[in-house]
Amino acid sequence: MIPEAVIKTLSRSTPSKIVLLVMDGVGDLRREGETPLEAASTPNFDRLARESSLGLTDPISPGITPGSGPAHISLFGYDPIRYQIGRGVLEATGIEMKLGPADVAARGNFASMDAEGKLTDRRAGRIPTAENERLIRKLSEAIREIDGIEVILRTVKEHRFVAVFRGKGLDGRVADTDPQILGRRSLDPEPLAPEAALTAETARKFIERMNEALKDEHPANTGLLRGFASLPHIPSMEELFKLTPACIAVYPMYRGLAGLVGMELLAVEGETPADEFEVLRRNWGRFDFFFIHVKKTDSYGEDGNFDNKVKVIEEVDRALPLILELKPDVIAVTGDHSTPCPLAAHSWHPNPFLLRSEYIRGDRGERFTEAECARGVLGRFPAREALPLLLANALKLEKFGA
Amino acid sequence: MIPEAVIKTLSRSTPSKIVLLVMDGVGDLRREGETPLEAASTPNFDRLARESSLGLTDPISPGITPGSGPAHISLFGYDPIRYQIGRGVLEATGIEMKLGPADVAARGNFASMDAEGKLTDRRAGRIPTAENERLIRKLSEAIREIDGIEVILRTVKEHRFVAVFRGKGLDGRVADTDPQILGRRSLDPEPLAPEAALTAETARKFIERMNEALKDEHPANTGLLRGFASLPHIPSMEELFKLTPACIAVYPMYRGLAGLVGMELLAVEGETPADEFEVLRRNWGRFDFFFIHVKKTDSYGEDGNFDNKVKVIEEVDRALPLILELKPDVIAVTGDHSTPCPLAAHSWHPNPFLLRSEYIRGDRGERFTEAECARGVLGRFPAREALPLLLANALKLEKFGA
Repeated sequence: MIPEAVIKTLSRSTPSKIVLLVMDGVGDLRREGETPLEAASTPNFDRLARESSLGLTDPISPGITPGSGPAHISLFGYDPIRYQIGRGVLEATGIEMKLGPADVAARGNFASMDAEGKLTDRRAGRIPTAENERLIRKLSEAIREIDGIEVILRTVKEHRFVAVFRGKGLDGRVADTDPQILGRRSLDPEPLAPEAALTAETARKFIERMNEALKDEHPANTGLLRGFASLPHIPSMEELFKLTPACIAVYPMYRGLAGLVGMELLAVEGETPADEFEVLRRNWGRFDFFFIHVKKTDSYGEDGNFDNKVKVIEEVDRALPLILELKPDVIAVTGDHSTPCPLAAHSWHPNPFLLRSEYIRGDRGERFTEAECARGVLGRFPAREALPLLLANALKLEKFGA
Repeated sequence: MIPEAVIKTLSRSTPSKIVLLVMDGVGDLRREGETPLEAASTPNFDRLARESSLGLTDPISPGITPGSGPAHISLFGYDPIRYQIGRGVLEATGIEMKLGPADVAARGNFASMDAEGKLTDRRAGRIPTAENERLIRKLSEAIREIDGIEVILRTVKEHRFVAVFRGKGLDGRVADTDPQILGRRSLDPEPLAPEAALTAETARKFIERMNEALKDEHPANTGLLRGFASLPHIPSMEELFKLTPACIAVYPMYRGLAGLVGMELLAVEGETPADEFEVLRRNWGRFDFFFIHVKKTDSYGEDGNFDNKVKVIEEVDRALPLILELKPDVIAVTGDHSTPCPLAAHSWHPNPFLLRSEYIRGDRGERFTEAECARGVLGRFPAREALPLLLANALKLEKFGA
């Protein structure tokens, strides 16, 4: 794995353009002898595959199932072990909250407790989002700051919210307050490092004041905090790779992840692949790296809905010429992780990976499928190494050593 | 990647013999559907491939194009990131200067400046080598030492020379003096670390005295220094791998690189593959590891000369029986990096790799080509891991752990 410090000295800015098309969770397993990629009718991908090199990438390493955070961090060319994105930060990112280096974010759950303070429902009966919004307005008015630390609260959905603490001297190493079982009182937010004492104390006071403000509410008369975290210090793609990168994604979490590595987040009207590719066309001149994210392959994988996953793949295939007409110097198509329908969840299976440029070695792949990619000339490699490969094919990397 | 400290405890000396045949830059891209390896008529390689296991190796990691230094350091079994060879050392190595641990070497360019000291030609009109030799004799007489630090100067070619500073307390972390643009004065050799203050000061005084000695010369009335570096502390192949290794190479840089890891450098008369293989035959009894380097596959790749690259491959093929008759226990054939004709330069594409021993798993490869190697049973792996694989196949590695 090439160290960041080295790739930074090798990368250079050139006019060549790279498109990285990510079909979230596209890799799958076979049903009646075929995966969704195999079952789909994909004349455009088939043609592209015959002009490309194929391979498989591991999001992290063999056997490891990643969340969306580390899977994308790898795809963007970063070490997913080094740059772990805490759950609080990911939750905030997922609702497009802009965090700064002085912030600590935590995931919140509205919950129910009895008169003795013992938890009776860790999700407060999954209150409706509108009720959550009313409670967040109430809390935001009641608790604007704690000893000079600003408190920012945002609704996510149903019982879920985000709490951000903003001020000097904060540190994310604080333990969860959720005891994970009913009949217990919520835990104190203990500092897990001496540097986190102030944050833990601030969180403790916040919980006290929250309980006071919610004491007449029902069923949401308390809240639990988990996944305290601050922003990791990630160098931008511009700093490391000399790229001017843009993100074309519909879902907030992926926009947020792209924002963490310094991509410009382009607005998308509509949410079909064709809508996204139209944004690519309109912004073609302004950037040299485009990350395009298609969500629904993953969504249908999570639902175990094989047939609809096939339909999304076919929809991307139909729109694909919109990208190819722009003649990118390098195009790669892949997933961030697999989401096989039989598992109805993310999995550890490697991602099919396709790469076309002027400088590829020919391959014999006839289609963009898991099996063809497993036989491809690119072999199997860590997803994190895909970005250097894209840069190389765009002639954006100098030689290492003399 | 197995750590050095571990492999050192596993390696053992045995009488079995390993031949590592490196065809520099042999990997390529297709022209009219064929790479040079595919286009060449290679009956001997074809037969060997059918008795071998095939695979692909990455010199550094996917997408990274290496210089000859890191590419060979990997092939010799060392971490190319840890053991980076500075340009000054490589230049000295390339003219077979023997450096010691107390030396700092820099690449020199004779250059031209005007009366105000502003550069008018960074290469002094590429003076002939003979003129360079005359100037180096003159400078060597004028500057034998600086405050007790010995100064050793050697001609490389045309305007290029090497300056070596030898003495106690030197350190290679000194900035280049070449401003890289005309119309500027050359830069002072600034220390990049406190430990390099003496080296920088010595270099500064050297430049002063060089300018004095050259003041009546034309066009080479000054010199620029770049790539200050000292020898990295590389453990020898004998120390790490218990090998008694020999190098059979014609070009000085590769002999120098082999010397850095402790290989004995065998003299080669002539420069054809057959000449090199004859040296192998004559020295067969004295060593248990032979690195044989064929340069011209790379040279023709750098020229973009597809047809001549094919001819060199065929020439190696014709001479191959000279190696095989010796019945090495292990033979590997590979490149150090690819040098595709369409790029006319080193590239990031992985190297075809062939391995034959008594203990290989069978393969289905019919030829030693990029595409057959991409389908080989060895898969794709870092070039640095090839050497442990050779040792294993020669039964020179003990079991790791009980």
